[in-house]
Amino acid sequence: MDDDRISLAHGNGGRFMRELIEEVFARHLANPDLDTTADAVPIALNGGEVLITTDGFTVQPLEFPGGDIGSLCVHGTVNDLAVAGARPMYLTLNAFIEEGLEVATLDRIVASLARAADEAGVKVTAGDTKVVRRGEGGGLYLATTGVGIRMPGVPPSMKRIVDGDVILVSGTVGDHGTAVMLAREDFGLRGELKSDAACVIPLTEMMMKFDGLRFMRDPTRGGVASVAHEIVRATGFGVRLEPTIPVKVQVQSVCEMLGYDPFYLACEGRVVAVVDPAQAEEALQAWRSTDAGRDAARIGRVSAADKRVILETSLGGERFLEELEDDPLPRIC
Amino acid sequence: MDDDRISLAHGNGGRFMRELIEEVFARHLANPDLDTTADAVPIALNGGEVLITTDGFTVQPLEFPGGDIGSLCVHGTVNDLAVAGARPMYLTLNAFIEEGLEVATLDRIVASLARAADEAGVKVTAGDTKVVRRGEGGGLYLATTGVGIRMPGVPPSMKRIVDGDVILVSGTVGDHGTAVMLAREDFGLRGELKSDAACVIPLTEMMMKFDGLRFMRDPTRGGVASVAHEIVRATGFGVRLEPTIPVKVQVQSVCEMLGYDPFYLACEGRVVAVVDPAQAEEALQAWRSTDAGRDAARIGRVSAADKRVILETSLGGERFLEELEDDPLPRIC
Repeated sequence: MDDDRISLAHGNGGRFMRELIEEVFARHLANPDLDTTADAVPIALNGGEVLITTDGFTVQPLEFPGGDIGSLCVHGTVNDLAVAGARPMYLTLNAFIEEGLEVATLDRIVASLARAADEAGVKVTAGDTKVVRRGEGGGLYLATTGVGIRMPGVPPSMKRIVDGDVILVSGTVGDHGTAVMLAREDFGLRGELKSDAACVIPLTEMMMKFDGLRFMRDPTRGGVASVAHEIVRATGFGVRLEPTIPVKVQVQSVCEMLGYDPFYLACEGRVVAVVDPAQAEEALQAWRSTDAGRDAARIGRVSAADKRVILETSLGGERFLEELEDDPLPRIC
Repeated sequence: MDDDRISLAHGNGGRFMRELIEEVFARHLANPDLDTTADAVPIALNGGEVLITTDGFTVQPLEFPGGDIGSLCVHGTVNDLAVAGARPMYLTLNAFIEEGLEVATLDRIVASLARAADEAGVKVTAGDTKVVRRGEGGGLYLATTGVGIRMPGVPPSMKRIVDGDVILVSGTVGDHGTAVMLAREDFGLRGELKSDAACVIPLTEMMMKFDGLRFMRDPTRGGVASVAHEIVRATGFGVRLEPTIPVKVQVQSVCEMLGYDPFYLACEGRVVAVVDPAQAEEALQAWRSTDAGRDAARIGRVSAADKRVILETSLGGERFLEELEDDPLPRIC
């Protein structure tokens, strides 16, 4: 890779993206309120009870089974607030529209965005649109900022994670990445699979009732494997992923055919939670009692004796899961 | 124009953009907190004393005399809060980066962004980056959301405007639009002219001390002529622009050569203020006493007898200024 120029790998949620953010953005913009590793950060309004987050969306195609860039931008932003322990309240919306986009397509997408916002209980309060020339944009890019209020309970934080904590996921992984990939003409594949994109507020609010909750994250770009790497970097502990990570049969077979690992593929409606082992089973059953969490599973544990991300296989073996480098799927979210 | 597809005119700050926003975005997203005509809107945190705004930036070239897309995104967002009567506090940042952009260019731009944020006294608290494939982006697009706290004093609002109010501008108009245009290779022109892009907080805070202040706006896309049209639409009164609108000789001559009207060209560091005639002279002198406001001028008045935007010429004639339709300068901000 040419180190002097931006490559697709700088956007994939893995090592190059992290380095770009640390070495360019965080280096220049460093301030006590900037936390490049958090989903949403508190700002000093109402005594720090206000959280803010921002996200860009470039998914291609703009409409895919289970969603579109409009609903996705709401879910992505709302979910970042939810996993940070906040109740989402307001969104701002930026649209970068490429000359030539069909107005009917834009209209469907904005209608879908509005429905998703209604369902999540958030209001879009400010917006801006820019039009770029044909060939200077990918149809439509959206950027959203979300503002929320901290929920009652202990704020979830990487800092609360201790040795032996249990890791849960609220549903099957890799559905979004696989569904978007299948929706792309160039693969010539079609399936019944839908993106998991959804608002996770009910799942996170349920988890906030457990005082043994340590931390939550939505495994988007880079998938559950990248969340595990983030935990390792933030805590210094290792993460052992167990052979119980739920993957749909369809997702597994598409991944095998095309050479992807579902643990690195984006989800857009799942929550990874790190919890006290004493409450892990109760928390898991709480999720499983809901429709959105019916496939929830324990998927691993925090292990101070290890310093890396280790995948235990169903045959009793284990292997390291490396940090993502190349971008398998640009414009997945 | 093909009505079924997005054209560049949908992004120029004129009639087509207004219709797109009203008919697609506002129609679906309507809620009591959304105001598509305001620079920044209050959100119900701290009793409505928190204001929020958002802006996208696509300026081409990315670096131009007097600024770059990094400083511009800070100034643009901060200024929207400032003219709404708020003190900017926090920014979020989204970067859409095109594969192939030089990392050194990105680094200069982010460094410039950080300096502009420092100077404006705002902190970047959250960010996101996305990389799009070569040919799917124009090098770099930025989207920023700004959060601020309402300043003491009566909140400036279009609703406060009454017949006979005087309109001021804080400096020469069209500098940004002309400087960016000259920086584009394809015109083959070069000049000493710099963009006026700057933080206007000192100018707006000065104006907030006048209880006769009715309304402020930064005349960006569409220029002072489009601000006049916005006033006409919001109040039902006409606006008479006087032959005193300050335009630099260089800007005037470039505009004459290329067939542009400077009144429609973007400024990125100017403020248009509508004030009680009894305080207009004092307010104008306050601005003129500062370096940023040394070219400030009275440029018109609100006239209930007229229902349109009328330009009075220096020879005593007058003509209608129509709402902007075609986009003279895509990617100007």
